[in-house]
Amino acid sequence: MMKARIPVIVLLILLLVMLVQPVLGADPTGAITLAENPDAAVNFSWTLLCGFLVMFMQAGFAMVETGLTRAKNAVNIMMKNLMDFSLGALAYWAVGFALMFGTSTGITALIFGASGFFLGGEAYDVSTMELWFFQMVFAATAATIVSGAMAERTKFSTYCIYSVVISALIYPIYGHWIWGGGWLNAADFMVTLGGGYGALDFAGSGVVHALGGFVALAGAMIVGPRLGKYRKDGTPVAIPGHSMTLALLGVFILWFGWFGFNPGSTLAATELRISVIAVNTCLAGAAGAVVVMLLTWWRYGKPDASMTGNGVLAGLVAITAGCAWVSPYAAVLIGVIAGIIVYLGVWFLDWKLHIDDPVGAIAVHGMNGIWGLLALGIFADGTYGVYTTEGPMVTGLLFGNPGFLGAQAISAIVVFLWAFGLGYILFRILKATIGVRVTEAEELEGLDLGEHGVSAYPNFVMTEPAIDGEKS
Amino acid sequence: MMKARIPVIVLLILLLVMLVQPVLGADPTGAITLAENPDAAVNFSWTLLCGFLVMFMQAGFAMVETGLTRAKNAVNIMMKNLMDFSLGALAYWAVGFALMFGTSTGITALIFGASGFFLGGEAYDVSTMELWFFQMVFAATAATIVSGAMAERTKFSTYCIYSVVISALIYPIYGHWIWGGGWLNAADFMVTLGGGYGALDFAGSGVVHALGGFVALAGAMIVGPRLGKYRKDGTPVAIPGHSMTLALLGVFILWFGWFGFNPGSTLAATELRISVIAVNTCLAGAAGAVVVMLLTWWRYGKPDASMTGNGVLAGLVAITAGCAWVSPYAAVLIGVIAGIIVYLGVWFLDWKLHIDDPVGAIAVHGMNGIWGLLALGIFADGTYGVYTTEGPMVTGLLFGNPGFLGAQAISAIVVFLWAFGLGYILFRILKATIGVRVTEAEELEGLDLGEHGVSAYPNFVMTEPAIDGEKS
Amino acid sequence: MMKARIPVIVLLILLLVMLVQPVLGADPTGAITLAENPDAAVNFSWTLLCGFLVMFMQAGFAMVETGLTRAKNAVNIMMKNLMDFSLGALAYWAVGFALMFGTSTGITALIFGASGFFLGGEAYDVSTMELWFFQMVFAATAATIVSGAMAERTKFSTYCIYSVVISALIYPIYGHWIWGGGWLNAADFMVTLGGGYGALDFAGSGVVHALGGFVALAGAMIVGPRLGKYRKDGTPVAIPGHSMTLALLGVFILWFGWFGFNPGSTLAATELRISVIAVNTCLAGAAGAVVVMLLTWWRYGKPDASMTGNGVLAGLVAITAGCAWVSPYAAVLIGVIAGIIVYLGVWFLDWKLHIDDPVGAIAVHGMNGIWGLLALGIFADGTYGVYTTEGPMVTGLLFGNPGFLGAQAISAIVVFLWAFGLGYILFRILKATIGVRVTEAEELEGLDLGEHGVSAYPNFVMTEPAIDGEKS
Repeated sequence: MMKARIPVIVLLILLLVMLVQPVLGADPTGAITLAENPDAAVNFSWTLLCGFLVMFMQAGFAMVETGLTRAKNAVNIMMKNLMDFSLGALAYWAVGFALMFGTSTGITALIFGASGFFLGGEAYDVSTMELWFFQMVFAATAATIVSGAMAERTKFSTYCIYSVVISALIYPIYGHWIWGGGWLNAADFMVTLGGGYGALDFAGSGVVHALGGFVALAGAMIVGPRLGKYRKDGTPVAIPGHSMTLALLGVFILWFGWFGFNPGSTLAATELRISVIAVNTCLAGAAGAVVVMLLTWWRYGKPDASMTGNGVLAGLVAITAGCAWVSPYAAVLIGVIAGIIVYLGVWFLDWKLHIDDPVGAIAVHGMNGIWGLLALGIFADGTYGVYTTEGPMVTGLLFGNPGFLGAQAISAIVVFLWAFGLGYILFRILKATIGVRVTEAEELEGLDLGEHGVSAYPNFVMTEPAIDGEKS
Repeated sequence: MMKARIPVIVLLILLLVMLVQPVLGADPTGAITLAENPDAAVNFSWTLLCGFLVMFMQAGFAMVETGLTRAKNAVNIMMKNLMDFSLGALAYWAVGFALMFGTSTGITALIFGASGFFLGGEAYDVSTMELWFFQMVFAATAATIVSGAMAERTKFSTYCIYSVVISALIYPIYGHWIWGGGWLNAADFMVTLGGGYGALDFAGSGVVHALGGFVALAGAMIVGPRLGKYRKDGTPVAIPGHSMTLALLGVFILWFGWFGFNPGSTLAATELRISVIAVNTCLAGAAGAVVVMLLTWWRYGKPDASMTGNGVLAGLVAITAGCAWVSPYAAVLIGVIAGIIVYLGVWFLDWKLHIDDPVGAIAVHGMNGIWGLLALGIFADGTYGVYTTEGPMVTGLLFGNPGFLGAQAISAIVVFLWAFGLGYILFRILKATIGVRVTEAEELEGLDLGEHGVSAYPNFVMTEPAIDGEKS
Repeated sequence: MMKARIPVIVLLILLLVMLVQPVLGADPTGAITLAENPDAAVNFSWTLLCGFLVMFMQAGFAMVETGLTRAKNAVNIMMKNLMDFSLGALAYWAVGFALMFGTSTGITALIFGASGFFLGGEAYDVSTMELWFFQMVFAATAATIVSGAMAERTKFSTYCIYSVVISALIYPIYGHWIWGGGWLNAADFMVTLGGGYGALDFAGSGVVHALGGFVALAGAMIVGPRLGKYRKDGTPVAIPGHSMTLALLGVFILWFGWFGFNPGSTLAATELRISVIAVNTCLAGAAGAVVVMLLTWWRYGKPDASMTGNGVLAGLVAITAGCAWVSPYAAVLIGVIAGIIVYLGVWFLDWKLHIDDPVGAIAVHGMNGIWGLLALGIFADGTYGVYTTEGPMVTGLLFGNPGFLGAQAISAIVVFLWAFGLGYILFRILKATIGVRVTEAEELEGLDLGEHGVSAYPNFVMTEPAIDGEKS
């Protein structure tokens, strides 16, 4: 009975909110903004189009995650991807954006923002809306990383709640610390340490990827491995995904979208280094792919497709923090090391820690997110300033500014503690209340039937549902 | 023998047309346009890139429609989607655009345009070409809506003829009435009723979606339900689609493309409210998804994936008319109601009217297209002007201008009558002549073999072709 | 043991290269460029966004090629597509770009460039980076064409080596001749012949498509037909692909990406004829599709889906050279003839020459690439100048400048000889050394298991692996 009233309640809340919102921002139509800054047109156009590409990364994640898992769970994963975006957008609209980019006063400003809830009041402005859109698709990217690592055994209802919490709270607050004027970027001691600026993260190796990756780590640990994933002696069993074609399609889509993610993060086409960022993004992904292909070829005798796809993503994650401050050489090198990290990281998580991550999200996004933050601290070559082509030049260890690497290391530690810590608390609470895992019977049968009452491919004859993973 | 000559005839006609077209428009190179308006570069860039995204929606429709129908008809549906775009582009080039945006004089101008056939003469101008491209991808969107509702039993040849007629005639003439200076928008009594402007439709809830949706209604009625879709007592039988993965991939692609569809409809990046439009487009789709997910969860005990995907699309259709004139609050509310409408609409068509629409296109595009037109008349808040940030402010019922809702209601009634009426006549004529439906044997075997002589997935073992729908 | 050291060696080389590169280009940040040319922002934005769309064509090629081949080779083809892009990007960064667009002096400048290796030195400039990115995605397009023609029997290691060679050498040198100031475009006798300009190729019918298509021809000839493809009497056996759905999805993706490929090739949004180019690109693809559909319908009694998809691509390839210099009428006509060419070309290669091209790449890209070059020489109507709206007007045979058709014919002959010749030599050398073809047993079992140790669809029951092609 309660459930029946949910839509009605949602509706009433919305109407209520509406009544209390007669104020408009400074420039809802954009006329003033354009008059003051004629470049606003090209910058809005650039930022929004790049934001659309980032939004499309949702399709890429959906394909990678679905392709790398079993057919019996395909509907469930697609739905999780669809709902983390939908719920996440609403949560970021209601709360997240205000915490991340809202204004607050005094010491609080270093911790979180506190204005612009529901994009109301002064937030009703074309520039704020532009920022919201671009940031929302980033928030959704962080959210969707987790679905892969927890795939094939996590309850759908739990995942919905998680989606709201990460988009409304976990993501925005760390995001504020880096991008919203918070302490990691702007506190005096951080600025001093960095040599004129605090911790930086151009497009979100830390803010988006490490954050998502370490929440994923907490989730994967708490939900536990899939049935049959590890033998009694702890040896992992490979559980191949049901469509390598779709998984690699997803890699292409993600790479495509990443060209919105990184170059778009200038928020301005008038920063012509967007071309350098695009080049770096391309080369790091390519280098990651080639290195992982060679490593798997050398180690297993054959080049491995899913690992190579993860090599692309690893390179992309790692270049994301530094793409605007390093040279193409450094981008290749960062991609090469990213490939090595993802190769070792997947092995370490699976063989040593026995943490079951069906798609490799923790190594791709978590570990390489950290590498991206540190790489920026190492390779920033002083060619480019902090926010624009003006300002203090960003310079890293190799170019004589070790303090900045220190600032980046602090940021890396903080994102790990914050994401893993809050993720752990969140999933513990969920486990103790509504539960995080489907029943054993449902897992064996597949979550598509159990959670959604359909199967993804009813016209195809399937192999037996795998019980111990070995037959799948 | 006749058929053998078709390509030759096509070729001759083209050569003929070519000979009679030595005239150029005012500015085929763009040099004059750019000199007069330096913003033309950013506005062309914006409009074309958004148009490319709209074109890509064809892939989204193809995936949604193919995913939600059976494997034995996959080639047929993909081909229908490919050909409604290809035939539609040529038809819109030859005739449609001239009827929609051409110039005509006197009272005729309120009914249809009559210049620029084959983009010839004065139409050979960079600005006209830009408009043509953006409008053509919209025409193709209207055309492709119908294929889903008539899927799995409609003859391919019939569908080709329909594609030409909708793109050349049905779509452009209603389009002229709203966007080309026609009577719904510009006739004196409509302007008076609206309070300074007639019926409006920013990006086409009515022009594109309701129009496509009600032609689809006529088509689905005349072609009749699929074999086995309704039991003798009228109870509908669910016929699940063959790939929920591809269906939801299609939803992501459509959402992505919609960010070209709505924000791009400013035709200008210098209208900075493109950011507001993007925000509204995002929120309405998200709200539609969440509401439908909750409704199906409450009603059936499990969140339904295909309905949730339709919830996204419903929210997007509904915000399309008003996206440039309402606030984000209103966008969420419009999306919420759109979700409720699609949920009830699908049920009503299936259970009460027994109209078989395999993908839910009529409820998504038709019903929510109407809702979009009305919602604009209700929620327009007077912040924005008609065409730009200048001009009379667009204001709806809730903000003191009930007359505008009246104008919108007239537009809604007209689009229903026009689309359903002409669609009905068209498919009746086709039924009486070449026929609209494949044979029963072909339908059971699948249209891929019957219409195209191939099967989509020859390397996979399929379940038995479903005869009564229950086994599929 | 050797292999184990590869990553280490790669790393060392990179570090070495880094040490020798302290020089920056004229304007790495873009501040000077923007100050000199305020249009740079909109032009960079346009060029990069279009380049992103071109990059996404990799996904389109991957889907077309995978969809049109058998399930047992799906992983292999996806991997080939991923690696030709990744290896190609690194090869084009290291060597290719320098040969294509670098500066060299005296007569050498007509043959190849020789500066900007590894994007170092003076190449570290925002404008050079922008050019590199846009050109790199074009190089990758040429490279990926070959994978389809050689699918289902080519060794992966061989394909990796080929990918490097085409991106580093074969593509850039012919590219230099047309786009980099080389002899086909700029030698005095060519300029005289053309009537003020030498051979032209707006977006690469020759540079990209014919080049890729004729390397593909050489490759397909040397690797030989798939087992079971031809009966003893030479009759070809149709080997249907495993997912027509994904193949046609790929066609949509390619069409979408082509709107970056052609209009983006202005490298400037300030050239407003980008709208004309978009219109031409749309119409030629549509005309190609319709003509091939009609031809197959007439010839086989049913419209063929895979051929119709190739009809779209044929029209797109053919309009690519001339899209900026011909009218929409001519675009339709060029598309019509492209459709006829691909229809006859596929038949001729398969039935007469017995060259096995699983996806039709040679007819689509090779033959229609040539047609595109010639069509430009025939239909260029003198409305537009060479590079911009300024300069000598480009005029073809039908408009009184037969010499230009001569220049185009020379370019067409050269691209054939160069691409086929070098391709032939390359694959001969590879055949004589590491081999080009997998073993018969591996081919029968599928390259996914043999080359990569996985199968693409382990959850699905497959039909028996086809041995003679007839059962597949």
